[in-house]
Amino acid sequence: GRGEAGKEPESESILSGFKTSNILRDSAREKNIFVHGKLADQDAVVILEKTPIREDNLPEIFSGSRLKLEMKNDIYSTYRLQVPPHLNEIKTTVVCPATEKHVKKYQRQDSFLVEETGKDYQSITLPYIQKQSFSVQWVYNILEKKAEADRIVYEDPDPKVGFVLLPDFKWDQKQVDDLYLIAIVHQRDIKSLRDLTSEHTPLLQNIFQKGKEAILQRYNLPASQLRVYLHYQPSYYHLHVHFTKLGYEAPGCSVERAHLLSDVIQNLQSDPDYYKNRTLYFPLRADDGLLSKFKEAGRL
Amino acid sequence: GRGEAGKEPESESILSGFKTSNILRDSAREKNIFVHGKLADQDAVVILEKTPIREDNLPEIFSGSRLKLEMKNDIYSTYRLQVPPHLNEIKTTVVCPATEKHVKKYQRQDSFLVEETGKDYQSITLPYIQKQSFSVQWVYNILEKKAEADRIVYEDPDPKVGFVLLPDFKWDQKQVDDLYLIAIVHQRDIKSLRDLTSEHTPLLQNIFQKGKEAILQRYNLPASQLRVYLHYQPSYYHLHVHFTKLGYEAPGCSVERAHLLSDVIQNLQSDPDYYKNRTLYFPLRADDGLLSKFKEAGRL
Repeated sequence: GRGEAGKEPESESILSGFKTSNILRDSAREKNIFVHGKLADQDAVVILEKTPIREDNLPEIFSGSRLKLEMKNDIYSTYRLQVPPHLNEIKTTVVCPATEKHVKKYQRQDSFLVEETGKDYQSITLPYIQKQSFSVQWVYNILEKKAEADRIVYEDPDPKVGFVLLPDFKWDQKQVDDLYLIAIVHQRDIKSLRDLTSEHTPLLQNIFQKGKEAILQRYNLPASQLRVYLHYQPSYYHLHVHFTKLGYEAPGCSVERAHLLSDVIQNLQSDPDYYKNRTLYFPLRADDGLLSKFKEAGRL
Repeated sequence: GRGEAGKEPESESILSGFKTSNILRDSAREKNIFVHGKLADQDAVVILEKTPIREDNLPEIFSGSRLKLEMKNDIYSTYRLQVPPHLNEIKTTVVCPATEKHVKKYQRQDSFLVEETGKDYQSITLPYIQKQSFSVQWVYNILEKKAEADRIVYEDPDPKVGFVLLPDFKWDQKQVDDLYLIAIVHQRDIKSLRDLTSEHTPLLQNIFQKGKEAILQRYNLPASQLRVYLHYQPSYYHLHVHFTKLGYEAPGCSVERAHLLSDVIQNLQSDPDYYKNRTLYFPLRADDGLLSKFKEAGRL
């Protein structure tokens, strides 16, 4: 068979032998599809995604294409346009052999909204976080300039209110439209929103103020076009703040996960222990270990 | 020229005479582009959007396509796939002749975050809303069963805590993945979040409870998979609540515009006048009349 060691399949035809077993995920909005199947007897995941329409291709698309009228009503008409293949490619990613972990990663997962009281945090969430002991070594590497030092956009080195501001990995920095930066605090003992009290308002105000100034200076984007927020739950338990461009639907900016930094500061000013006692809501994926803990505790 | 009255251009070639003047908007994520230009001396807007990848086309795509290797690293490889044109059409919409209003509508607009204190609401926002006197006749038509009566999913007719629940226009109701319903209250004197006080918590709790039950019964979707929230600013000033499926990135569910109903109830319980006094943040488009008012008042 084609899968034998040492034999590299021809790239031109590799997918003609692909046998689909199931669709892991697809998005009509983003025009992509994640397909699980077999490639020469090996498990494989094939990801197809249509490419963005490029402005510089427009003249050729308009002149060299075939149109089929679908509907005409007053000044509006719709067509199906057939374009020469080289102007309309599909980005294809093949993972082969794919492990069970890959398949699970790409599988669409339902999310469930969890209601966490201050007590739930102490009895369910905190023990879970501590037991997992997720490594944040990569964060310390950034703070200590052992990694990504060249990516730093701004730093305030103060150990109490200081932070490092750098682009998020999701942002390719090629256009300001999808601007995404992260401010990581120098203090190492603040896991998340839940640990914040009024003693941290100087830290939060410093990040808010200096982060906005640094972004104006570097990217010429005024503060009024920024969305500045924290996640709860965060994806790692070392306090950090997200800066994204308003109007860009950044992943994780929905109301059920994001907390505006301005609101956080306001809340701590009106109640120093607001985030210790407040009931917080957040989504967890069906396969999240923390969700099982909430279920075991009869909280879902 | 081709634009003369009575002469219908051939649909097959209509775009070959299109002269692009500028790009109004495009989205790399959604693979669309909005182009302004001239079609036979008339102003026109042409909208191109790639079509979703259909599962039933996959066998033909895999067998009949050409692949070009871009990158190979361990188990991962990426390709550019060239597909027969009939499997990879582009949806094309032509608006011709297009008015200035069309062009403005499709033009990308920057958004700006406005900071509104309780005082700003009284001195800037409220007078603006009252002066505009946006009609909510269509809302009253729904409440009085003069329109859309067949679309109602659930009603509690109580004049004090009652509401009507119906699908939002954005939802085609064909799949639960992008579920979107609206609860419209029977009370007619609550314009928005700003008008809510602790006297409204029975109303809000009633909507929360009965709305969730109705959705479970009709769509078999449990409350833990719902995102229930209000908008501030709302798009019309008669109190309504949004119910969308968790995991569906519904337009307007971002943290800068959405307020979780659970949080609203919690806030009113801890402070009856919370929304009268609280500073609220919301985005406004560059061409929004209310934004001009905030600028005139020196608040932006």
